[in-house]
Amino acid sequence: MSLTRDDLVAMDAADPLKRLREQFALPDGTIYLDGNSLGALPKATAARLHRAVTDEWGRGLIGSWNHAGWIELPRRVGDKIARLVGAAPGELVAADSTSVNLYKVLAAALAIQRNGRSERRVILSERSNFPTDLYIAQSLALQHGCELRALCAEDIPAAIDAHTAVLMLTHVNYRTGRLHDMASLTRLAHDAGALAIWDLAHSAGAVSVDLNGAQADFAIGCGYKYLNGGPGAPAFVWAHARHAARLEQPLTGWMGHATPFTFSPHYEPAPGITRFLCGTPAVLAMLALECGVDTVLAAEPLGGMAALRGKSLAMTRVFAELVESRCAGHGLELVSPRDDALRGSQVCLTRAEGGHAIVQALIARGVVGDFRAGDPQVSDILRFGFTPLYLRFADLWDAVEHLRAVLERGEWREARFQHRAAVT
Amino acid sequence: MSLTRDDLVAMDAADPLKRLREQFALPDGTIYLDGNSLGALPKATAARLHRAVTDEWGRGLIGSWNHAGWIELPRRVGDKIARLVGAAPGELVAADSTSVNLYKVLAAALAIQRNGRSERRVILSERSNFPTDLYIAQSLALQHGCELRALCAEDIPAAIDAHTAVLMLTHVNYRTGRLHDMASLTRLAHDAGALAIWDLAHSAGAVSVDLNGAQADFAIGCGYKYLNGGPGAPAFVWAHARHAARLEQPLTGWMGHATPFTFSPHYEPAPGITRFLCGTPAVLAMLALECGVDTVLAAEPLGGMAALRGKSLAMTRVFAELVESRCAGHGLELVSPRDDALRGSQVCLTRAEGGHAIVQALIARGVVGDFRAGDPQVSDILRFGFTPLYLRFADLWDAVEHLRAVLERGEWREARFQHRAAVT
Repeated sequence: MSLTRDDLVAMDAADPLKRLREQFALPDGTIYLDGNSLGALPKATAARLHRAVTDEWGRGLIGSWNHAGWIELPRRVGDKIARLVGAAPGELVAADSTSVNLYKVLAAALAIQRNGRSERRVILSERSNFPTDLYIAQSLALQHGCELRALCAEDIPAAIDAHTAVLMLTHVNYRTGRLHDMASLTRLAHDAGALAIWDLAHSAGAVSVDLNGAQADFAIGCGYKYLNGGPGAPAFVWAHARHAARLEQPLTGWMGHATPFTFSPHYEPAPGITRFLCGTPAVLAMLALECGVDTVLAAEPLGGMAALRGKSLAMTRVFAELVESRCAGHGLELVSPRDDALRGSQVCLTRAEGGHAIVQALIARGVVGDFRAGDPQVSDILRFGFTPLYLRFADLWDAVEHLRAVLERGEWREARFQHRAAVT
Repeated sequence: MSLTRDDLVAMDAADPLKRLREQFALPDGTIYLDGNSLGALPKATAARLHRAVTDEWGRGLIGSWNHAGWIELPRRVGDKIARLVGAAPGELVAADSTSVNLYKVLAAALAIQRNGRSERRVILSERSNFPTDLYIAQSLALQHGCELRALCAEDIPAAIDAHTAVLMLTHVNYRTGRLHDMASLTRLAHDAGALAIWDLAHSAGAVSVDLNGAQADFAIGCGYKYLNGGPGAPAFVWAHARHAARLEQPLTGWMGHATPFTFSPHYEPAPGITRFLCGTPAVLAMLALECGVDTVLAAEPLGGMAALRGKSLAMTRVFAELVESRCAGHGLELVSPRDDALRGSQVCLTRAEGGHAIVQALIARGVVGDFRAGDPQVSDILRFGFTPLYLRFADLWDAVEHLRAVLERGEWREARFQHRAAVT
């Protein structure tokens, strides 16, 4: 039997997480399905930043590094993120960008292999991994005399072999929403003598992650997607405790020094993950990130990440069902996996033509998703991300009705939707 | 004849830059001589950030990358900073931290030497350079099979020779305030076949810099000191246009790609300096930085950096004179050069004992400087930075009177000033 809008309204009424939405300042008339690109604004952020700017910086000036605890921010925010990804306190820091952090951990992983006198020369990844991950790997492959092999997701397990130095994957694929099995792939990597790096850009705050349970080696992730940290928020970096004593990373800035305020001319790394800090932390951006992370931690008394994951899976399942039932015959094809175990927190569709214009027409109607262009090897993608913290089931119905209207009326063929913006 | 407070009040009255102070939210009762560590808060910043958070992020959401111009921020803010350091539009971008940017440019410089089949293996720097610069150089020296030679300032010119790959200096020394002659040292480096990298952390916004005039090769600098960008503000990076076509830097993130939004799996660098971008720009921090840079650009109609430099030199000269005349007999020794041509925008003092406690006692009186501990090779430093944008000549008198009181009364010997904070 088909779902009705009333069914979805009833699901909202019964949703134990529903009051978490009150934490966000969401614009009226918008159904925001792009929290996987930029998370929505927490209500607490503006006031927190105002206090940081006027009181801590303006009045406290340089003294706020101590008195306002700025110097501890990378570790304090890191410890909070750790709770969301199965890491222990002291194992994870907030710092720099995802790209810069990937450079650190991939260099560290290659150094571990090199120091172990390994002849392994392959960095194994996914062809449709987010490009910045591939670019950073290309740079380090060149530097270390390695080769980047980027394969289709289904070909990866069989390709993990005695040549693999590092398996480097994004846990949830940004184009398809496909979720890798972190534990089993990490085990395959370890069995073959390789190390496993996980990019949690589309996972942290959206799907259940257990870094220590999976025995992963390194992880990085993004602060501005499901962690709601704001545009260009600091990213994070984690290393398994078993590597703590032998971590070498090349971005040896002063904040990663054992005693930065002795101003020694010789680099001596801080214990553990702190050595993955580089320059002076971006205080204002860290504080905004902390507000965002707190919105996810607010789910802890309500079941935490498991509850959020449950709601997220229900939402993506319902959205895909509604698209297939209510937009049938309009040429949309589901790209994201139907199997819950293989699906992240997004639903991706493809269509032979008009994908970009359809997304633009939806945005004009207040339904914000995004578009990722294909190439000869991968399809165009209409991408919809679902943040269980602030979305309602009824929003899914309304979004699909807008999609149906755009398609039935041929609205997307209007000239105003044909323009491609610089960023989408 | 000795200066009186009335003389200084008269200098303030005649100061053509005096109204620039109105741009800042300075706390009552504080004389802030630490703008070389963290610049003061511009009044415009709180409102600008509030608008960015609530309107651009909160209401505009992902669309603000285009509609609010976020994607252009690294170049837009970079072009503004360029005006302060003798660079042309399009040559400089705001990005990442100073440490990360130094890694990029030092790697790029070493790549130019390597691609030119140079056998040069020495990175030449100053022993008391800011530690993060030395740490990054140590990391890249190891990676490239080079050696870091860190010498005393006066020994550097003679050490530039056929083995020198890169001369890497901070223009104004953070401990002593000594200013290097950028043009002549760059010429010496080029005559010897080396490249010159300048760290402008203590220069940008404080002393006159002419990167193109000096024919420098690369420069980096800090956003949170004299540019007033806020704690941990993004840094900046510049390369001379003659290198634009052959710049290779290892932090190949997607924002440095020629066409980031085609999501190509293959890295292709953007033209020129844009390839020095790496991850997603820190939007909120960039906007705060822009407010800070605007406070310095506000001096342009009043004579710009030359006028600011003139006032800064007068201030450091007056402060040093007052310390020597009014605090005579208390064991303070001037470390910063007396010669205007050799002095940045700070005055550093040393004393056989009590330096840290004296600085703490001054802070308790509202005079904020900082302390940098020495080691067997360099002296303890009592450091006072002078930001001509917001300091008044009368402040110098008052600051020195506080210093005199602390010394005459032995106030610094009180137990409460003996404690060392984590960060100072």
